[in-house]
Amino acid sequence: MIPLNPPTHVDIVEVAPRDGFQSIRAPLPTADKIRCIQALIDAGVTRLEIGSFVSPRAIPQMADIGEIVRHFIGRCPDMRFSALVPNLKGAELALASGIRELVFVVSVSQSHNQSNVRQSVAESLSNLKTIAERLRERGGTRLRLDLGTSFDCPYEGHISWQQVDAVLEQARDICQGLELEIALCDTTGRATPYQVAEHFTRLRERHDHSRLGWAFHGHDTYGMGVANALFAIHHGATALDAATAGLGGCPFAPGATGNTATEDLVYALNGGQVNTGIDLTKLLDAADAIATLPGGQVASHLRQVPRERLA
Amino acid sequence: MIPLNPPTHVDIVEVAPRDGFQSIRAPLPTADKIRCIQALIDAGVTRLEIGSFVSPRAIPQMADIGEIVRHFIGRCPDMRFSALVPNLKGAELALASGIRELVFVVSVSQSHNQSNVRQSVAESLSNLKTIAERLRERGGTRLRLDLGTSFDCPYEGHISWQQVDAVLEQARDICQGLELEIALCDTTGRATPYQVAEHFTRLRERHDHSRLGWAFHGHDTYGMGVANALFAIHHGATALDAATAGLGGCPFAPGATGNTATEDLVYALNGGQVNTGIDLTKLLDAADAIATLPGGQVASHLRQVPRERLA
Repeated sequence: MIPLNPPTHVDIVEVAPRDGFQSIRAPLPTADKIRCIQALIDAGVTRLEIGSFVSPRAIPQMADIGEIVRHFIGRCPDMRFSALVPNLKGAELALASGIRELVFVVSVSQSHNQSNVRQSVAESLSNLKTIAERLRERGGTRLRLDLGTSFDCPYEGHISWQQVDAVLEQARDICQGLELEIALCDTTGRATPYQVAEHFTRLRERHDHSRLGWAFHGHDTYGMGVANALFAIHHGATALDAATAGLGGCPFAPGATGNTATEDLVYALNGGQVNTGIDLTKLLDAADAIATLPGGQVASHLRQVPRERLA
Repeated sequence: MIPLNPPTHVDIVEVAPRDGFQSIRAPLPTADKIRCIQALIDAGVTRLEIGSFVSPRAIPQMADIGEIVRHFIGRCPDMRFSALVPNLKGAELALASGIRELVFVVSVSQSHNQSNVRQSVAESLSNLKTIAERLRERGGTRLRLDLGTSFDCPYEGHISWQQVDAVLEQARDICQGLELEIALCDTTGRATPYQVAEHFTRLRERHDHSRLGWAFHGHDTYGMGVANALFAIHHGATALDAATAGLGGCPFAPGATGNTATEDLVYALNGGQVNTGIDLTKLLDAADAIATLPGGQVASHLRQVPRERLA
């Protein structure tokens, strides 16, 4: 008999305001974004990727990121907000706005990194180095490293844990001395639960230490979303990225749908008494608010179920 | 932590021809049913619930079950066909047609059993007794017992493993001496992976013996389909029910969608090198055939993914 010991707590990192809003081409009013983020906070979300400090020419949807951060940063002292930054300039803007956790993305596969950020992996790691140096000088700031295409690349196919290891090893050296969380990102949703388990097991064997956090970022495109997340937490992940209502997609990953719906994950975790701090009923209210944003593509199982049929 | 040792083999029991076809209200031509079943066999399916020997007045869709069985039974000597029977009369018809594995359904919850078969649980068990006696006389026939609402009932809510145990204990006594497979059925799809693991663990502790098989029958309504199935096989299930294309639903379980799509399960199992004998590409051909049946409701993740993006 296999023992069943889920962790007592898992961090849910809500990414709808970044991955999700970004997938919507039509401009969203800032007030609507603030309303949706507030609904997520009201539901008990404690970690939230609030957006990206990127050029508004590159991603117009993120042009109001400064205004959104200013709205929330003082009001919510207990929230752990993070923001994606592509380079030192973005990092400086994020830090100036009061953000204390930066997210940097590099894909394990060259071709996906090239299409996603128009840089080689080495160029991205060089950017990471500049940001890490700045954070070491400054102190008191966390770094989340999203390793894109950690299981599969839309252009190169299967990605082995050894390929992830090669990038992770360089990244860890670069980030020495920082409080670092590594996210293995199943960008395409093609990973199976067994691949997820293998990558977490192997990479944690090689890299685990007390100041390193592990997260899983998944999509439900292939129907593996919940299973992948559970296999991740049973093999060492302590944080799960998810998007309420399943809002999202990746413009550079053909066929990809949004991140696994936060409500589907919370439902599964509740079943194992895994604490997330999130109130499922209020989260579904937030999901309804997000699902009615014009131009958004959503994918949630739980929203299809009558409310009275939820535990 | 769940150690990474999936079983080397899992039986997939294809139920689209029973659960699935039955959910379609419009009459399906017999030739279309035969074409879909043949496509499933061509894909490598080895266990198939071919239909129900029930009154055509109760379920008109099953009126041609005899003709369908006659078509396949001699042609496919290696196939393990099963058929649902509600009573001794159905059992006699099934046996006379050449079927060597009977499926009998009883719900753990009184109210669901009443709405599903218009009998109390005790009346159903009395029917089971008559069938079991006939099979013992006859010899050489397997019995599959589907325990409906083994986790949740649409009318009564949460079902504990102790409630399942009470019905299972009676059923086991009734079926002594027969080759028996018990299916814990998540009729509504509301079970979480942790509840599935708990029920298999507890019930196998109490009832396991060498001639008893264990199966899980799940739905993806709440997004738990793949995760529930994997937690089941990691806690002792050796067979998984699934419906290609996710065809199906239960008319007496409000909000229920079809069984978890066979292709989604096979994809997950392939990732763990769990052998099912099924060719995923050919299975998707069968899924396409099933998905084009008029009046069918399908739900499959894998069918949405471009073929070239499948492993």
